[in-house]
Amino acid sequence: MPNAYSRIKGLLFGRPLASDRLEHERLDKKTALAVLSSDAISSVAYATDQILFVVGGAIGVAAIGYVLPISAVIVGLLLLVGLSYAQTILAYPNGGGSYTVARENLGVRSGLVAAAALLTDYILTVAVSISSGVAAITSAYHAMMPHTVALCVLSIVLLTLVNLRGVRESGAIFSVPTYAFILMMIALVGLGVYHVVAGDIGPLASNTPKLDPHTAHLQRTGTVAGFALFYLLIRGFAEGCAAMTGTEAISNGVQAFKAPARQNARVTLMWMVGILGVFFIGVSYLAYHFAVMPTADETVLSLLGHRVFGSGFAYYALQYSTFTVLVLAANTAFADFPRLAGILAHDGFMPRQFSARGDRLAFSNGIITLGAVALVLVVLFKGDTTRLVPLYALGVFVCFTLSQAGMVMHWRRSHEPAWRWRATLNGVGAVATAIVAIVQVVTKFTAGGWIVVVIIPVIIYLLNRIHRHYETFTKEVAYNGQAPFMFLHHTVVVPVNGITKPAAGALIYATTISEDVRAVYVEVDGDATASLVRRWEEWDIGVELTVLPSPYRSILRPLVDYVDRLVANGDADLVTLVVPEIVPRSWLGHLLHNKTALFIRTAFLFRPNVVVTAVPYLVGRAARLRDLLHHDEQLEERVSA
Amino acid sequence: MPNAYSRIKGLLFGRPLASDRLEHERLDKKTALAVLSSDAISSVAYATDQILFVVGGAIGVAAIGYVLPISAVIVGLLLLVGLSYAQTILAYPNGGGSYTVARENLGVRSGLVAAAALLTDYILTVAVSISSGVAAITSAYHAMMPHTVALCVLSIVLLTLVNLRGVRESGAIFSVPTYAFILMMIALVGLGVYHVVAGDIGPLASNTPKLDPHTAHLQRTGTVAGFALFYLLIRGFAEGCAAMTGTEAISNGVQAFKAPARQNARVTLMWMVGILGVFFIGVSYLAYHFAVMPTADETVLSLLGHRVFGSGFAYYALQYSTFTVLVLAANTAFADFPRLAGILAHDGFMPRQFSARGDRLAFSNGIITLGAVALVLVVLFKGDTTRLVPLYALGVFVCFTLSQAGMVMHWRRSHEPAWRWRATLNGVGAVATAIVAIVQVVTKFTAGGWIVVVIIPVIIYLLNRIHRHYETFTKEVAYNGQAPFMFLHHTVVVPVNGITKPAAGALIYATTISEDVRAVYVEVDGDATASLVRRWEEWDIGVELTVLPSPYRSILRPLVDYVDRLVANGDADLVTLVVPEIVPRSWLGHLLHNKTALFIRTAFLFRPNVVVTAVPYLVGRAARLRDLLHHDEQLEERVSA
Repeated sequence: MPNAYSRIKGLLFGRPLASDRLEHERLDKKTALAVLSSDAISSVAYATDQILFVVGGAIGVAAIGYVLPISAVIVGLLLLVGLSYAQTILAYPNGGGSYTVARENLGVRSGLVAAAALLTDYILTVAVSISSGVAAITSAYHAMMPHTVALCVLSIVLLTLVNLRGVRESGAIFSVPTYAFILMMIALVGLGVYHVVAGDIGPLASNTPKLDPHTAHLQRTGTVAGFALFYLLIRGFAEGCAAMTGTEAISNGVQAFKAPARQNARVTLMWMVGILGVFFIGVSYLAYHFAVMPTADETVLSLLGHRVFGSGFAYYALQYSTFTVLVLAANTAFADFPRLAGILAHDGFMPRQFSARGDRLAFSNGIITLGAVALVLVVLFKGDTTRLVPLYALGVFVCFTLSQAGMVMHWRRSHEPAWRWRATLNGVGAVATAIVAIVQVVTKFTAGGWIVVVIIPVIIYLLNRIHRHYETFTKEVAYNGQAPFMFLHHTVVVPVNGITKPAAGALIYATTISEDVRAVYVEVDGDATASLVRRWEEWDIGVELTVLPSPYRSILRPLVDYVDRLVANGDADLVTLVVPEIVPRSWLGHLLHNKTALFIRTAFLFRPNVVVTAVPYLVGRAARLRDLLHHDEQLEERVSA
Repeated sequence: MPNAYSRIKGLLFGRPLASDRLEHERLDKKTALAVLSSDAISSVAYATDQILFVVGGAIGVAAIGYVLPISAVIVGLLLLVGLSYAQTILAYPNGGGSYTVARENLGVRSGLVAAAALLTDYILTVAVSISSGVAAITSAYHAMMPHTVALCVLSIVLLTLVNLRGVRESGAIFSVPTYAFILMMIALVGLGVYHVVAGDIGPLASNTPKLDPHTAHLQRTGTVAGFALFYLLIRGFAEGCAAMTGTEAISNGVQAFKAPARQNARVTLMWMVGILGVFFIGVSYLAYHFAVMPTADETVLSLLGHRVFGSGFAYYALQYSTFTVLVLAANTAFADFPRLAGILAHDGFMPRQFSARGDRLAFSNGIITLGAVALVLVVLFKGDTTRLVPLYALGVFVCFTLSQAGMVMHWRRSHEPAWRWRATLNGVGAVATAIVAIVQVVTKFTAGGWIVVVIIPVIIYLLNRIHRHYETFTKEVAYNGQAPFMFLHHTVVVPVNGITKPAAGALIYATTISEDVRAVYVEVDGDATASLVRRWEEWDIGVELTVLPSPYRSILRPLVDYVDRLVANGDADLVTLVVPEIVPRSWLGHLLHNKTALFIRTAFLFRPNVVVTAVPYLVGRAARLRDLLHHDEQLEERVSA
C-alpha cells in the first residue's frame, strides 16, 4: 500500500528533493521575469476592459474618449511605485515583502494588516487571472462560453498540481509562453500603431458592449458632467489600477534570484515596469483609435487582435499566449501565498502545518489552501472577471502604502548614504498609494469591495487568535526546572475476556513493563466466569485474575471504577491499561469486532495518571504474539549464555 | 459531559436496570395477549382489503362475491396452524422460535433459512403494520393523506424509543388500546350482523375502488373464467394470508410468560386464533353484505365503520383503536427481531453487538437496526400498504413449514405420550403451509415478491459469512499451550521536539516502564539542533538524546528506520514508542496541532514487536505531568520513610 501511494505521489509530484537542494532552486533574470512579472504584465489583458466597462456604464461608447488619459495616470503611478520598490530591494535582500517591511518598521499590527491584505490579494490574483485567461479562450471560441466555470476549475486544479512539484520546474515550463506573450504584444501594439499611422483600418462598429450596471446611476439627467463625470473617471481609474497588482512580486522574491540577487532583482523590476507601461498605454491607445468596447463574450485584446491580425494564426497565437501568461500570473500567487503563509506560520500567526516544506521543497499546505479558496471564489462568481475585479487591487494598495511607509521609517533609522533621497521617494509613493487605497474603498465599496473590507479584519482577528493560542501553549508546556526526580509505583491492568493469544500478548507486554500486573475480567454473564477462573488457575501465567461484576452489563464502568479505586487508595501512582486490540483484516472484521480498545482509550483520556496502551493483534497476518513466541528459541539461548 | 449524556439518556430510555430484574419482566396472560397477539389480530385491518384489491383488479366490484369463501379457507388454515403451534409450545418451553426448532431438528441450514425468513418478515411486520395504521388515520382525516410518509416515519421513531426503554413497560402502556380495539371490533361485527339481519342498511354505493393493476391482465376476453378465475382466487387467497402473520409470536415468546408458562401460552394462543378468526370472517361477511370495496383513501374497516356506526364517536374510536393496535403489532416485531438477532449473535451468525442487552434489559442494537430498516422500507414504498403486502407473508409461510416439519422430527425422536397424534398434526400443518408458501412465491413474484426471494438468500449468505469469520477468529486466537515464558529486552523510544512538559511526561513514563530509554530528535531544521543538544546536556534527565537527520523533511521516516534498525540489529526484542500526545482544549487547538501521535501509531500498526503508547498532555486542564509533579512531595516523603 505505501508503495502504490509513493508511486502515484511520485508520478504526480515528482521524486522527493533533499533539503540541501533548496539553494539551487534559484532563478536567473530571464526566468525570474517569466515567473515573477507575469502577474503585472498580464494585467493588460483586463485592465483596459475594466476602465471601458465601468466608464461605459454611465456614458456608453463615449467612454473610449477617456481611456487614454486614465491609462496614462495609472502608468505614471506605476513608475513611481516601481522606483519606490527598487529602494526596498536594496534594503531587504532576503525578500522585502510588505509583511516583513511593515512589521519590522511599523510594528506587528501594521505587519498583520499587510499580511491579511496580501493573503486576500493573492487569492484574488488566482481567481481574476484564471477567469481572465479563460475569457481569452472563450473570446476565440464563443462555443466554449457555457463551460467557463469548468475551464476555470480545471486550470486551478492543474496549477495546484504543478506547484506541488516545486518552483524551479514551474520556471522552466513557463518561460516560453511568457516570452511568446511579450512578442505577440509587441507585434500587436507595433502593427496596430503602424495601421493607425497608415490610416488603413477604420474604427470598429462594436456590437452590444458589456457595461457596468453599478455606474448607470450616474447618468441621471441624460448627460454626465461636473462632479458626476469626475467621480466616474475616478472610479474608472480605481478599476484600471488592477494593472498595478503584482508590482511587489519582485521585491518579495529577491531571495529567489541568483547572485547578485539585489542587482538582478532591480534590473528585472525596471524591465517589468517598462514592459507593463508600454503594453498598457499601447492597448488603451489602440482601443481609443479603433473605438473598441469589450462585449459580453469578447475581450478588448481579442477584438484588437481581430482588427490588427485578422482571424489567422497570429490572432490565435495572441489568444493562447494571453491565456498562458494569465495562468502564469496565477502561478505567481502560488509562489507567494505559500511563502507568506510559511513566514506567518514560522512567526506563530498561522497553523504550523503551513511552515513545513513538502517532499518537493514547496510549501504543500499553502499551495493546497490557495488552490481550494480560489476554486470556491471562481465558482461563486461564475468565472466572471468583471465581477471579481472590484474586489481586487484594494488590498494591494493597502500593502503598497504600508510597505513604503515602513521604508520611510527604515531609511530614517538607517542613515545610509542617500537615505534622504530614498526616504523621500518612498514617502511620495506611500502618500500616492494611500490616496489610491482610499479611492478604491470609496468607489468600489458597493460593487463588491465591501467583501474585502469585511474579510481583511476577520483574517487579522484569526491571525491574532492563532498567535495567542501558540503563545499560551508555549508558555504552558515550557519546562524550566531541573530534571524531575520520580519514584512511581506503576500498576498495570490488563482487561481480558478469556485465555486467547491477544490476551496472552497483552499479558506478556504487561509483565515486561511492570512488576505489578493485574488481569481483570468484567463479568456480564455469570455462567462463563467459573470456567474461566478454573482454566486461569491451570494456565498459571503468574498474574492474578480479578473478576469485576457488572450488574448493569457495562464493560467500561466496572473497569473505570476499579482503576479509580486503585488510584484513590494510593495503591498506584501511575496506572497503565494494557488492552489487547484486534486489528481485523477485512471490512467485515471491522463490523464484527467491538472497538473495545478505542472505547477504553476514550474513557480514560481525561483521567490523570492513567495511560492506555493497545497491544495490537493482527488477525491473519504476522501476529505480534506469534513473532514473540518465535523469538523464544533465540531468547532462551541468550538467557542460557 | 457524561452527566448531561446520562441525564438525556435517562429521560429517553429510563434508568438502567440491573440484570437480576430480567426475571421479573415477565407477562401475565392478559398483557401477553396484548403484546404478542396484536400482530395477528390487527391484520383484520388490511387482509380483507387486500383480497378485494387483488381480485377486484381483474373483475372489479364482482370481487365482493368471492371474499367470504376465500376468508373461510384462510381461517381454516389458521386453525390448523394454531393447533400445530400449540404442540410446539409444549416441546419448547424456552421459546420455540422457527429458528430454534428448525435448527435443532432439521440442521443448521434449515435453521438459517428460517432465521433469514423471520428477520425479513419482522421488518415487513413493522412496515406493513405502520403503513396500515397510518391508513386508518388518513381514512378518518383525508386531509392527512399527503403526510402519510411523515406519519409513518414518526410512528416508527417513537416505537423505537419506547422499545429502547424495555419490554414490560411496553406491555403496560399498550394493554388498554388492544382491548379497546377488540371491544370496538366486537361492537362493529355484532352491530353489523344485527343490521344485516334486521335488513335496515342497504349495500354501499362505493365510489372508485382501488384495484390491483397486476391482476388486470387476467381480464383478457371481457369475462374471467376457468383457469384465469381459479388463478385469480388463488392469488387473492395468497394476499389474504397476510392475516396469518404473527401466529408464531406466542410460541416464540413462551419464556416471556409468567409461570406456568406453557399452559398460559397455549391458552393465550387459542384465544388469539379464536378472536382473529371471528373478526376476519366478520369483516369479510360485512364487506360482502354491504358491498364495500376499498378506495384509494379509505380502508374497508373505515368504510364499514361509517356504515355501521355513522360518523360519530364510535367511528373515531374504531379508527384510533385500529391505529394503536397496528402500532402494537409493529411492536411485536420490536420484541421478536432483537431477541432472534440476540440468539443468532450468541450462535455466532450475527455481529456480537446484537447479543448485548442494553441498560434497560432490551437488545438495543437489534431494536435500532429494525427501526432503521423499516424506516427505509416505508419511505421507499411511500407508506402504501397495498404495495408492501405482496412482500409480506411469504417468509412467514417458509417458517411455518420449517418449524412444523422440525416438530415432526422432534416427536418422532422423542416418543413422548401421544407423539403420533402430535406428529400427524404438525405434519398436516407443514404440508398445508408448504403448499401455501409455493403459492405465495408463484402468485406474488411479479408484484414484489421477487424482492424477498432475492433478499432471503443474501441474508443466509451473510449469516454464514459472519459465522465463518468468528469461527476462524476463535480458532486463530485460541491459546492452548502453557503460559509463555518470556525474557525480553525492552527498549523504549521517546520522540521529542524540545524540552517541554509533554516531553518530560513521556520521559518519566518511559523510565518507569524500562531501563533502556532513548530520546530521539528528528532534525528538520539544522539550526535548532545545536541549542537543543546543549540544553539537553544541562537538563541531565539521565536519558541520552539521539539526533536523527531528515534530509527529506519527513518526521516519520527517520523514526521508522531507527526503530527498524533497533529490531534488526537484535538490540531490542520489543520496542515501545512513548509519544507525548497533545490533547487540545478547543476546536482551534485541534486545527493548530499536528496529529503526530496518531500518525506514529498508524505508521507502526503493522510492525511486529512494536507498541505505541501515547502519554496524553491535556492542554489547560489538570495536566498529567503537573499531577505527577504535585505528587512529588508525597513521593519524596514516602521514599525517605
